[in-house]
Amino acid sequence: MPKINPSIDSVGGFQVAGVHAGLKKDGAKDFTLIVSGTDCVCAGVFTRNKVKAAPVLLDMERLAQNPTIIRAVATNSACANACTGSVGLENARATADLAADALAIDAEQVLVMSTGVIGAHLPMDKIGRGLRLSRGDLGSDWRAAAAGIMTTDTRPKLGSIRVDTAAGSYTIAGIAKGAGMIAPDMATMLSVLVTDAQLSLPDAQAALSSASQQSYNRIVVDGDTSTNDTVLLLANGHSGVEISDDAALREFQAALNALTQYLAQEVVRDGEGVTKFVTLDIINAESEAAAEQIGQTIGASVLTKSAFYGSDANWGRIVAAAGRAGAAFEPDGSSLWVAAGEALPQGQRGLQIFSGGMPTDYQEADAAAIMNEPSITFTLDCGLGGGCATIWTCDISHEYISINGDYRS
Amino acid sequence: MPKINPSIDSVGGFQVAGVHAGLKKDGAKDFTLIVSGTDCVCAGVFTRNKVKAAPVLLDMERLAQNPTIIRAVATNSACANACTGSVGLENARATADLAADALAIDAEQVLVMSTGVIGAHLPMDKIGRGLRLSRGDLGSDWRAAAAGIMTTDTRPKLGSIRVDTAAGSYTIAGIAKGAGMIAPDMATMLSVLVTDAQLSLPDAQAALSSASQQSYNRIVVDGDTSTNDTVLLLANGHSGVEISDDAALREFQAALNALTQYLAQEVVRDGEGVTKFVTLDIINAESEAAAEQIGQTIGASVLTKSAFYGSDANWGRIVAAAGRAGAAFEPDGSSLWVAAGEALPQGQRGLQIFSGGMPTDYQEADAAAIMNEPSITFTLDCGLGGGCATIWTCDISHEYISINGDYRS
Repeated sequence: MPKINPSIDSVGGFQVAGVHAGLKKDGAKDFTLIVSGTDCVCAGVFTRNKVKAAPVLLDMERLAQNPTIIRAVATNSACANACTGSVGLENARATADLAADALAIDAEQVLVMSTGVIGAHLPMDKIGRGLRLSRGDLGSDWRAAAAGIMTTDTRPKLGSIRVDTAAGSYTIAGIAKGAGMIAPDMATMLSVLVTDAQLSLPDAQAALSSASQQSYNRIVVDGDTSTNDTVLLLANGHSGVEISDDAALREFQAALNALTQYLAQEVVRDGEGVTKFVTLDIINAESEAAAEQIGQTIGASVLTKSAFYGSDANWGRIVAAAGRAGAAFEPDGSSLWVAAGEALPQGQRGLQIFSGGMPTDYQEADAAAIMNEPSITFTLDCGLGGGCATIWTCDISHEYISINGDYRS
Repeated sequence: MPKINPSIDSVGGFQVAGVHAGLKKDGAKDFTLIVSGTDCVCAGVFTRNKVKAAPVLLDMERLAQNPTIIRAVATNSACANACTGSVGLENARATADLAADALAIDAEQVLVMSTGVIGAHLPMDKIGRGLRLSRGDLGSDWRAAAAGIMTTDTRPKLGSIRVDTAAGSYTIAGIAKGAGMIAPDMATMLSVLVTDAQLSLPDAQAALSSASQQSYNRIVVDGDTSTNDTVLLLANGHSGVEISDDAALREFQAALNALTQYLAQEVVRDGEGVTKFVTLDIINAESEAAAEQIGQTIGASVLTKSAFYGSDANWGRIVAAAGRAGAAFEPDGSSLWVAAGEALPQGQRGLQIFSGGMPTDYQEADAAAIMNEPSITFTLDCGLGGGCATIWTCDISHEYISINGDYRS
């Protein structure tokens, strides 16, 4: 497996820009434009929240109609354009129209994304300025592009992976934003992935859906599913490498999985007020879905997250959360381990703290030493079947409450 | 409807005591004994968490076998006796045995409850001391009894209601504890209700199940369902008032509903770190179950709760939570109002902030003034059907994180 590069040099045929259009009060970048010189096949995964933001509704419509002619994605931060009704939908369309004018393409070739405060209308004058500025700034500054979509994120999230094949090399690159309102339900944030490989639309959609399921859908910051979650994959074929046979598709899928998991973990690491990165390995659950459900319930529990924050090995809360997850769970047949770090070597689980329905005779000081680490892994063996899932989550801190008690001011 | 008395004078045939047995480090009361001089019909409602604490398992077994001979409930705080396996079950049985010895009754006539840290074994010497001390202290100090079951609660929760009927008067009284790990799933905390009215077992169970559904199941502090949730109703018939015909049952139900709603709201008001009491009136949802589901999802959302804490009228988070609740929800047909206070006069909803899928032209200063109040009511009209439910919830504060980051030390 090729390694993830935590930056993006360039991706054949794509140009990007991230600028300050005036939506953020502090002068930070708040508008991002991603453009392909040629038509892209575009796959998308969107929030399952019944309250879908206007840009989500517009993109779903575009991808249902013309998913193979996409040329640009225009994204603003600081305003989600959600809960904005017909006015919001008009503004989303107007954004695409302005982008099409600026780039001399058709409006149907433009997708839009928004993130930020819910319930405010898009300031269209600033959107217009963002388009003018970013068109003049198009190039390969992907870090600026990743910065333009940030809200409470403290750093841009970007990465790329280069795959060398007998037919040539191609790159998959992506940016993402997260920070809050992060809970798994199809997509859980904004992310744009681009590749210069050539894929059919069904293959691109299948690869994106599968990768999202194993990455963005397996992270929890706070249990709230956003109105704006969108993950897009644009493929323009610029490298000339065609991904169509099974072996090539498997290789592409593996690379896309690695990249999306990297970006998803970056979202957790930079979650609002996060001080600890926690990996939940749920093994031997009744099914993979059950393992995922148990891990997500543990990851969303504020009691559990508070204990992570306090470096308290209060494992009873983990077992209690597993018990209310709605999946089959039998405490007497379950075991729980805790270890420092992440991505533990195969077969290593660390300190066993719970077994046969009751605590082991572990020493509290040993558990406390592990809990004090910035990265912790819990392995929960459900003893029921062969279902496994890894969920990446974090603690909840005073800082989270401060950020979200005062978000709009 | 007779009024709730926020204390308990006495309930015919019942004696209680609350003492310090040594489980709490600070010398506070940690053991409560409730005794009836004669056999009680006893109804129970228990946690739906698959991880059920030993006392829950024991009480469920007892009530399945001999629900009409109950004489005593022995409760300790500071140790939940949950995730303690076969040792925990033996300790729960031993607690009942010790209580039976102390009271010269059969062990089958004793129920037990525990609350506190999960995963620790009951210190049986201290349980023994609690039983000796409380037997010597039996009387009518219900405030002490309510104090003995507290964990992070800051004040005891108790109340009573006296019902005068043509056949005589009877009393229903109850104590409850809450504070954390509070989420609706049948019962959500510990509560013991007693009455000197005479009821059949099926009538008592039906009344308790219905009352719990409208009270304890409609509060959310943090979304975590406990392993120990237990609500008991003991009826000893001491008043000689028989509740059997429809009119008497309706009257009893109304009084029990009022008392349990009072106690449930007390649990929310005294939730961990709570600074705001929030009433969520969900109206015109597809069904009552849908209304409840929407209200509970809003009430459990940490983003929404953080905004309550910050007195931020960030209503978009409320609408977004409604959209992910899993029930039918159409933002364009929904409306949202906010008002200061609780139990608004019929037809009054306050300031409308959302309508037809987008914000109204309300003034932010007006919404902010309401949000600054200690008690706030949101009315969400879903515009879909006739389903209504009221959920009582609260904010999440820095204090909650502090309490739960450091609970076990």
